[in-house]
Amino acid sequence: MKLVRYGAAGAEKPGLIDAKGDLRDLSAHVDDIAGEALSDATIGRLAALDQASLPLVPGNPRLGPCVGSIGKFMCIGLNYSDHAAETGAAIPEHPILFMKATSAVVGPNDTVSLPRGSEHSDWEVELGVVIGKPAKYVSKEDALDYVAGYCVINDVSERKFQTQLTGQWTKGKSCDTFGPIGPWLVTRDEIEDPQSLAMTLDVNGERRQTGNTATMIFTVAEIVSHLSQLFTLQPGDVISTGTPPGVGMGMKPTPVYLKAGDVMELWIEGLGSQRQSVVMDA
Amino acid sequence: MKLVRYGAAGAEKPGLIDAKGDLRDLSAHVDDIAGEALSDATIGRLAALDQASLPLVPGNPRLGPCVGSIGKFMCIGLNYSDHAAETGAAIPEHPILFMKATSAVVGPNDTVSLPRGSEHSDWEVELGVVIGKPAKYVSKEDALDYVAGYCVINDVSERKFQTQLTGQWTKGKSCDTFGPIGPWLVTRDEIEDPQSLAMTLDVNGERRQTGNTATMIFTVAEIVSHLSQLFTLQPGDVISTGTPPGVGMGMKPTPVYLKAGDVMELWIEGLGSQRQSVVMDA
Repeated sequence: MKLVRYGAAGAEKPGLIDAKGDLRDLSAHVDDIAGEALSDATIGRLAALDQASLPLVPGNPRLGPCVGSIGKFMCIGLNYSDHAAETGAAIPEHPILFMKATSAVVGPNDTVSLPRGSEHSDWEVELGVVIGKPAKYVSKEDALDYVAGYCVINDVSERKFQTQLTGQWTKGKSCDTFGPIGPWLVTRDEIEDPQSLAMTLDVNGERRQTGNTATMIFTVAEIVSHLSQLFTLQPGDVISTGTPPGVGMGMKPTPVYLKAGDVMELWIEGLGSQRQSVVMDA
Repeated sequence: MKLVRYGAAGAEKPGLIDAKGDLRDLSAHVDDIAGEALSDATIGRLAALDQASLPLVPGNPRLGPCVGSIGKFMCIGLNYSDHAAETGAAIPEHPILFMKATSAVVGPNDTVSLPRGSEHSDWEVELGVVIGKPAKYVSKEDALDYVAGYCVINDVSERKFQTQLTGQWTKGKSCDTFGPIGPWLVTRDEIEDPQSLAMTLDVNGERRQTGNTATMIFTVAEIVSHLSQLFTLQPGDVISTGTPPGVGMGMKPTPVYLKAGDVMELWIEGLGSQRQSVVMDA
């Protein structure tokens, strides 16, 4: 199932994309694609609906982030062996965790606005993992049972804020609009193997990132298990699992960064596409 | 005004502590001490109430975290010149920011439960700053206008998770129960100068931390202004502003860490006291 949230920012309604690609309203069946609605029970109930009987949504409404009320927005750093090589970093011994502010979350096709003074903003296509039920001390073998589904995330990153404002990456990861999530939350039953998904990112029509989740250093199951040893993962928590090679920071002979007028297009196999225009904060 | 949230975890009601120290119910006047209720308008409306007319709350209910629905739980690292010296770290050029998971938040007197395998959990008494209205690109001069009030925070920290699980402090800061907040949200009108507040922390009755916000490297105003250049601070966001000397990690000749059965007691001038018992996760 492809679950979505559509409508004006902050007032999104729940919906789904049917087999024909049409948007249908789920408001009569669930309040939001968030929290408890991500449980196996609720997703099972939604999956059992006759999709043809759900109201078609007219027009072409904005899509919001495909998960609402995100509690923790976690990111794994340097999780692709080829990206780690590109940045000159060593292969980490454990998953590198940092947090992205939930206030950075926007819809998949919303505008990305660079903060004042930003000259080093960069793109990162990533597989997003949405937690479906509370997970604490879970094994690697059981970990995927706690996943509601998957989505595309752009982990937009201001490299100077990230690395030159004294320590801890969170500063460069948390700027407003730096977390496009969606278009869809694809339930886990539709993703046979989260470790074999192709992914790409283009800037202004030029291919910048090409990757596959097969080259992740830590798998989704390993990440969920590891984080659950540290704290409880809760329904609606989101984990962005790292980016493959091709970020602007790694470009030769000189790094290339985002500027007003740029357009980013992201795609992950089975999870759909995002498209963001870039502007600069006034 | 001393605002509180009382009752069972997850079902707290809003209240205030009156001039006699009695707890009175605010449920008829505000849904929660959270979000929009932290605006100057709502706090002004609550301040204008005749406190003697508010229902007295019988018994001695649990106090929850004094702010609900925290969006961002931000922490500033190494923000006391004497604590930076104690840990051997250099004085940072900018405020060091890391995020603490909001799922770590508990009430001021709730039990702190150490995660499995934890042998390096430590205490940190800190001045908490609660944001009252959206703040973006605010000057240092205007910054305190965006503060709803102040509270005590224990930034409990697992030092091995923080520093030896490959990078980024968030892992050691975000364990469940590692964020006691309260007892009260003291509105900013009651705190004449946030840079002259004495603070202490005792473990098992022995004084471990003694400090004063006067030795902060970056003042509250500087921190709020700096962070607002990076992203929007929203009502109900909380900033923990760093800890003075006396953490377990810095003790000579050998570091001392928390163990089951320990009791932590924290106090900040004008902001009240916390008391937590320590247990170990089963």
